[in-house]
Amino acid sequence: METIEKPYVLGIDMGGTGTKFGIVDARGNVLKSSSLPTQDYPDINDYCDALCAAMLKIVDEFGGIKNIRGVGGGTPNGNYYTGCIEHAANLPWKGIVPFAKMISDRMGVPCRITNDANAAAMGEMTYGAARGMKNFIEITLGTGVGSGIVIDGKVVYGHDGFAGELGHTKIVHGPEGRQCGCGRRGCIEAYASATGVARSAKEIIENSSKETVLRKLDIDKITSYDVFKAAEAGDEVAKEIFDFTGSMLGQKLADFVAFSAPEAIILFGGLTKSGHWIMDPIVKALNENVMSIWVNKVKVLTSTLKDSDAAILGASSLAWDIEAQAPMSR
Amino acid sequence: METIEKPYVLGIDMGGTGTKFGIVDARGNVLKSSSLPTQDYPDINDYCDALCAAMLKIVDEFGGIKNIRGVGGGTPNGNYYTGCIEHAANLPWKGIVPFAKMISDRMGVPCRITNDANAAAMGEMTYGAARGMKNFIEITLGTGVGSGIVIDGKVVYGHDGFAGELGHTKIVHGPEGRQCGCGRRGCIEAYASATGVARSAKEIIENSSKETVLRKLDIDKITSYDVFKAAEAGDEVAKEIFDFTGSMLGQKLADFVAFSAPEAIILFGGLTKSGHWIMDPIVKALNENVMSIWVNKVKVLTSTLKDSDAAILGASSLAWDIEAQAPMSR
Repeated sequence: METIEKPYVLGIDMGGTGTKFGIVDARGNVLKSSSLPTQDYPDINDYCDALCAAMLKIVDEFGGIKNIRGVGGGTPNGNYYTGCIEHAANLPWKGIVPFAKMISDRMGVPCRITNDANAAAMGEMTYGAARGMKNFIEITLGTGVGSGIVIDGKVVYGHDGFAGELGHTKIVHGPEGRQCGCGRRGCIEAYASATGVARSAKEIIENSSKETVLRKLDIDKITSYDVFKAAEAGDEVAKEIFDFTGSMLGQKLADFVAFSAPEAIILFGGLTKSGHWIMDPIVKALNENVMSIWVNKVKVLTSTLKDSDAAILGASSLAWDIEAQAPMSR
Repeated sequence: METIEKPYVLGIDMGGTGTKFGIVDARGNVLKSSSLPTQDYPDINDYCDALCAAMLKIVDEFGGIKNIRGVGGGTPNGNYYTGCIEHAANLPWKGIVPFAKMISDRMGVPCRITNDANAAAMGEMTYGAARGMKNFIEITLGTGVGSGIVIDGKVVYGHDGFAGELGHTKIVHGPEGRQCGCGRRGCIEAYASATGVARSAKEIIENSSKETVLRKLDIDKITSYDVFKAAEAGDEVAKEIFDFTGSMLGQKLADFVAFSAPEAIILFGGLTKSGHWIMDPIVKALNENVMSIWVNKVKVLTSTLKDSDAAILGASSLAWDIEAQAPMSR
């Protein structure tokens, strides 16, 4: 039996507004967590000081830093290879920030970072629906659409560390594609993200004369949960919104299958809570659009990571890969 | 210094009509090659007998089987994991053929197989334009459009051995997509393959009243070489055909970049001989369609594998990976 000399890891989930962090054991239990307002620290040094002080306080409750194998961080534009946050649009710190090194220096243990979606994929493989899988794709459906691609048991980082931007592959080519947040047009993110669903809802409601409970809501603030409630109540327009969204996403998933032939595609995020209303059209479009060798062969699953802990868990899972003795941040 | 105890490998390039094979050294020289008519052998056992007898004859000229590390085969629908040819439409043998085992049993050395495009990628990495690269995508532009994806120095085979079917990702969604040989619509293969270019030529010529030398040719038999000659002579319609083809392919390459963030995309096959006429619009469309982090960052190269030897070389490169002592066919 393997002896785990250092039984815990730390996970950091950095967002533009807040940063969550926690201590995690090898079974994927978040033993304790806390948070910090990212926006309150215009200087990255102050932010790292405050974050590490808060983490060390938790660490002390669990036997001190000698019990910590390392720190994993899921950060906007986190580059796994360099340990740097590179030109993140929604963070207070501009340019290139050597975040992993700054944390590692302060904590005295190694630190690895990547972006949120890759962290989610790592978490899924370590603690979630992808346990035991070597080839799968994690798709995060949130404010944006992110992805973490796992091939032969490893997250794909590519030549520069930024592989796996499947949210920014195109489902509509040409000028009729929807404007995407990345500055281009027609990306699947513009259709399958939270704002994408809201835009589809608006378009479908405005272009339809059908009766729908959704018409009573502020048309610019409809969420996938509103559409879900309406679909559950039998609203046909709500079903149409899910059918359209699922069809767009499923068609694109067929492309992803042709790329890496995954065992499963795992969907993570708020949209998946709409259950069969969104999953059925996704699976239908996927199977209508993959090559015959893959029809009904690729599992489409929803994440089993606990919602409140998922991001910390995903980030923390990066730290299990770090050899306990060798500082790996660079 | 490493001693190469077994200095040679054998490569088999199996096609529906003919099979080429040869003996290759570690520098990528095809020392001797020969061929066999695939179609003449309705029984796979007879085919393997004839092929192995012919290969052993060559082997004898180079010191006998003790000098052979193994055999690599590029075959239609070759499954790397199982060593089987699975349901290949254009071969005389139906169903699942345990080809690697049949060759290994007859030759007394291990055999590995994969499909043609993966073999091309292996060859490119071992002997060609991708030497020293760990992350690249090989796109073969021939009768069809194939692909071999290399991540962290390894060809991606996926969960089932059939990853890397990028020719069958869609550039046109919906019923207006061109019919593809795979039975679906809108695949990039229907636009960037040899027949795809011929179809584009026909469409563009028929929908244009512009003067063009191409109108003098049999419109159903125009090749990319005809279009190349016309473009070289200043023919505007010929340029339009390349612009259209390159634009479709380049747009799709942008999706591939978002997937695996390769250092380079390497194009292989007849279409690439049209030089800047096709490469310029490919590169333009790629850079117009990738996310900003990749604009002008991804190299687009043409294969440097010698044409006549490329397929044998690619296939043979599989055999260098085989441990000399352990038979790896299964």
